[in-house]
Amino acid sequence: MSVCMTGSESEARAHQDCLTKPRGSLGRLEDIACWLAARQGRVKPEPLRPHIAVFAGDHGVCEEGVSAYPSVVTAEMVRNFARGGAAINVLARQCGASLAVVDVGVAADLAELDGIVHANVRRGTASLLHGPAMSGDEMRAAMQAGRDQACAAMDGGANLLIAGDMGIGNTTASACLICRLTGASPEEVVGTGTGVDQAAYRHKLEVVGEALGRVAGQPDADALRELGGLEIAAMAGFYLQAAEAGVPVLIDGFISAAAALAARCFEPEIGRWMLASHVSQETGHALALEALGLSPLLDFGMRLGEGSGAALVVPLLQSAVALHNDMASFESAGVTDRDG
Amino acid sequence: MSVCMTGSESEARAHQDCLTKPRGSLGRLEDIACWLAARQGRVKPEPLRPHIAVFAGDHGVCEEGVSAYPSVVTAEMVRNFARGGAAINVLARQCGASLAVVDVGVAADLAELDGIVHANVRRGTASLLHGPAMSGDEMRAAMQAGRDQACAAMDGGANLLIAGDMGIGNTTASACLICRLTGASPEEVVGTGTGVDQAAYRHKLEVVGEALGRVAGQPDADALRELGGLEIAAMAGFYLQAAEAGVPVLIDGFISAAAALAARCFEPEIGRWMLASHVSQETGHALALEALGLSPLLDFGMRLGEGSGAALVVPLLQSAVALHNDMASFESAGVTDRDG
Repeated sequence: MSVCMTGSESEARAHQDCLTKPRGSLGRLEDIACWLAARQGRVKPEPLRPHIAVFAGDHGVCEEGVSAYPSVVTAEMVRNFARGGAAINVLARQCGASLAVVDVGVAADLAELDGIVHANVRRGTASLLHGPAMSGDEMRAAMQAGRDQACAAMDGGANLLIAGDMGIGNTTASACLICRLTGASPEEVVGTGTGVDQAAYRHKLEVVGEALGRVAGQPDADALRELGGLEIAAMAGFYLQAAEAGVPVLIDGFISAAAALAARCFEPEIGRWMLASHVSQETGHALALEALGLSPLLDFGMRLGEGSGAALVVPLLQSAVALHNDMASFESAGVTDRDG
Repeated sequence: MSVCMTGSESEARAHQDCLTKPRGSLGRLEDIACWLAARQGRVKPEPLRPHIAVFAGDHGVCEEGVSAYPSVVTAEMVRNFARGGAAINVLARQCGASLAVVDVGVAADLAELDGIVHANVRRGTASLLHGPAMSGDEMRAAMQAGRDQACAAMDGGANLLIAGDMGIGNTTASACLICRLTGASPEEVVGTGTGVDQAAYRHKLEVVGEALGRVAGQPDADALRELGGLEIAAMAGFYLQAAEAGVPVLIDGFISAAAALAARCFEPEIGRWMLASHVSQETGHALALEALGLSPLLDFGMRLGEGSGAALVVPLLQSAVALHNDMASFESAGVTDRDG
């Protein structure tokens, strides 16, 4: 949370201090409410209208054997999203969020699939081990697809934006991005993703190390094109558009943090619009959040992606806003304050 | 969570492993769903119907100057609960819980107040510094008031029970109970409660130390009568009744943990029915939860009581159940499993 308070953040804090509870006794709920108040420029934030966009893309690096699941699962899971059967569908319903599923780079023809957004830029990236994952034009098109989704959500009234990911192989791409953009070593960042065994894990470490060697010395702004994924580029564009419009985003897991770091290469102040929902079990997520200056709200040992961790914590934010807006004050309730 | 799985817990785990996500990737959400399944004796737990009972009582030890607020605030806050203006009212509405407010020992005449349960056993305890806080008959009557509330809630269909507290001075009573029942020192357990200054904190430490000296060598089962509060006794009775009926309880903060430890003196296996919602900022709460064998879900630096931390995490439990019950399986969704 911001240490330096803006006008409406300090006004929101003053409001908190009038409510019928010992000052500060709601802990992070008070910080969240004041942070949202400041972002919305109001003493009392509006109720949250969350929107989740899940971006799907495939990864050429899967041919290196870095994932426990085959690439075909990306398209199969997009079909599962479209039918409402995945974790993020359930969690979106639980927290009252609208949900869009976006094919930005799946390696299958999903043109006939109803209920998703068709914005396929390319059918999966090239292997980041051997060259750029995508071209500059492809990266910009994927980022624009993300920006378009943020605009559509905000036009629809959303005031809290969540980006989720689906892409077999994307923990490898994200590990590369996090290493490249934080300076951390593969050993500090690479995890087992959806659950590779020890031999595959060691190979994943080597792949990340080699890819980092390939791009050594390049500018930060090239990292997304060289090492990213189409869904990660879309998420970065989504975050940039939200920040430009002044709408908060709730960061999800490992992939989401990698996309946030990539977005920061284009807008250094973007962290000001971000809250971290949870710290995942994936190695390096905590380190990436720290690099973003974010402190996660929850530690549930999750490692699913899809925006699931972010959707899970939305009710905590909704409660923070409701407490801030709906509690009685010492004066209105006739309760003696400690100085009374 | 329990390491030894019952029949329905292992069946619930097998069900989790068929859902369209990498096994274990929902982390603690999977544990929660399987724990609730086991407690309900079902593979798929019923949706949660939470009920919150807030028990209010005053404390004679306040005359020792151990609290930042005067005793009169207990009754004032009960009136605030009755009007719906306190934090727990807001949080109960947020999570869809029913709420009962129970005067079990407030030091004021609340007989004319509508919208609360009148079960006053005594108008505040005696000072635990100089003798027993209450008589054995008073303790049993307060515990019965708690049992009655659990019965009423379960008769109304509740399948998740939360006890909250309101009682100026009750962090002192709870610190005494936690020290007495865990063997921890006052320095490890006593906190600043609603916010006493350093001088008052040192005095609070002395009061707790002296009270512990007074009851040294007495049986554990006497601790509640000697050192407790009427609302703490009611919470202990509430927990005992829930456990006897086989209904899970969600533990709140410092006072709630003290009541749980007191209840365990009467039923050693009671922890099997408990989940810990959060770890509060109050010193010694983490230690009390550890003694109960419980691992908190949230660490938000809260220190309010009222059942607020427990009510806050109810949506996380509701999401755990919804994911467990509503997600598609690999088979039903036609998604390739890692072994497929």
